[in-house]
Amino acid sequence: MIPREAIRDLLAEYALLIDEDRLEDWLGLFVEDCLYTVITRENLEQNLPQPLMLCENKRMLRDRIGAYRNVNEYNFHHDRHIVGEPRFCAAPAGQWRVQAGYSLFQTDLEGATRLFLVGAYDMTGVIEGERALLSDVRVIVDTASIPTLLATPV
Amino acid sequence: MIPREAIRDLLAEYALLIDEDRLEDWLGLFVEDCLYTVITRENLEQNLPQPLMLCENKRMLRDRIGAYRNVNEYNFHHDRHIVGEPRFCAAPAGQWRVQAGYSLFQTDLEGATRLFLVGAYDMTGVIEGERALLSDVRVIVDTASIPTLLATPV
Amino acid sequence: MIPREAIRDLLAEYALLIDEDRLEDWLGLFVEDCLYTVITRENLEQNLPQPLMLCENKRMLRDRIGAYRNVNEYNFHHDRHIVGEPRFCAAPAGQWRVQAGYSLFQTDLEGATRLFLVGAYDMTGVIEGERALLSDVRVIVDTASIPTLLATPV
Repeated sequence: MIPREAIRDLLAEYALLIDEDRLEDWLGLFVEDCLYTVITRENLEQNLPQPLMLCENKRMLRDRIGAYRNVNEYNFHHDRHIVGEPRFCAAPAGQWRVQAGYSLFQTDLEGATRLFLVGAYDMTGVIEGERALLSDVRVIVDTASIPTLLATPV
Repeated sequence: MIPREAIRDLLAEYALLIDEDRLEDWLGLFVEDCLYTVITRENLEQNLPQPLMLCENKRMLRDRIGAYRNVNEYNFHHDRHIVGEPRFCAAPAGQWRVQAGYSLFQTDLEGATRLFLVGAYDMTGVIEGERALLSDVRVIVDTASIPTLLATPV
Repeated sequence: MIPREAIRDLLAEYALLIDEDRLEDWLGLFVEDCLYTVITRENLEQNLPQPLMLCENKRMLRDRIGAYRNVNEYNFHHDRHIVGEPRFCAAPAGQWRVQAGYSLFQTDLEGATRLFLVGAYDMTGVIEGERALLSDVRVIVDTASIPTLLATPV
C-alpha cells in the first residue's frame, strides 16, 4: 500500500470512529506521545495561543474520553463528520502531514440534525508498518460561536 | 485500475447520478439480485428491523423509480450529496465493502437550499470487469425527523 | 505520480486556497488562457446562457481578485468548501475533466456559520510536468437564492 492510501484510511477511520461513538478505538489512531489541539481560526490567525481543548499526550486524551463516558454532562447527540479532499504537505523524513476541511453535523435525540462546526484539520503523523498514526492533530474551528459544550472530539 | 479506484468511481457516480436526476443510470450501478435499505441509526442500533425503505431486488428499485417518475406526488427538489472519505472493509473473496459518511442537501424550486439528511452508507458489491457494482446498499440515516417524503433515493 | 493524484491534489488546493484566503495562489492553479464561469443549475438546464460570474481569461480573474482585495464592499466572512468524490470523465488527448459536488459554508465575524451554497464543479484542465492545471472551470450552483454578494470565488 502506498502511504497516501494509508493516510486516507486514517482520515476515514478518524471521522467514522468518532461518528460511531467508538472513541476508545479512535484513541488507537494516536501515538503515545501525541498532541491534540482544538483552536479557533481567529486565535490561530492572530497568534493567540489559547486553545478550546488541549491534550498534550495520549493519557490526557484517554482521560478526556473517560470523563466523557463517566463524568461529563452534555447534550446527547450523534456526530457526523464529512472531511474534504486532503492536501498532502511536505514533512520531515519519516513523517507525513495533511490538511483537510471538514463539516461536522450533530443530530439530537429527537433525530433533528444541525450544522455544528466547520473548519480544517492540520495533522502530522508517522507510518508504523502499513498503518498511518497521528502524532499532532490541530483542529482549526471556523465556527467560534459554538452553542454547546465540545463534548466529543472534533 | 486498482479496485479501490473502481470503488471510488462507483461512489462518485452513486452520488452524482442521483444529484443529476439520472436515476435510471443510477439503477445501472446495481446487480440484478440486490438489496437496498434505508434505515434510521436508532433502529439499527436497537436491532429494530423496520426500515424506512426496502427494495429486495433491482425490479423493486426500478419500480420505485418508475413510481417517482410517474405516480408519486412530492416536494420538487434537487439533491446534492457530499460523501466523505470511505473506509475499505474486509469482505469475502470476490466482494468488497465500504462505509462512508454523507451529507445530503436539498434545493427547492425557489433555489433555497437546506440540510436534508446526514448519515452513512454501508455498501457491499462485486467487481465486474473493471467496474464496481452494488449488491447490498444499507443507507443509515442519523436524521430521524425527516420533514418530507423520501422521494428520491438517498 | 499518476494523473488522478495530480487532479485530486488540484481539487484539494482549489478548495483550501480559497478557504485560506490565499486567492493569489489560487489564481496560480489556472492556465493563462482560462475560462471561469459560475452559473445556476436552472439556467444551465434550460440553456439560458446568463452566468452569475464570467471571467474569460486569467487577467479577468486576476482583476476580479484585485477588486475583491481593494475595491469591493461585501460581508466579511470565511469560506469553507467540502468537495465530494470526483467523477473522472473522458477528455480529449492531453486534457482531463472531472465533475464533483461541493458544499460551501460561510462563517461571519461573530463566528456564526451557515450553509451558503451547494452545487457541482465541472472542471477541464491539462497536466504540466507533474501538476494539474485548470483551463475551464464551470461552477454550477444549485442554490439560486444567494442571500449576499458572491464576493469570493466559489
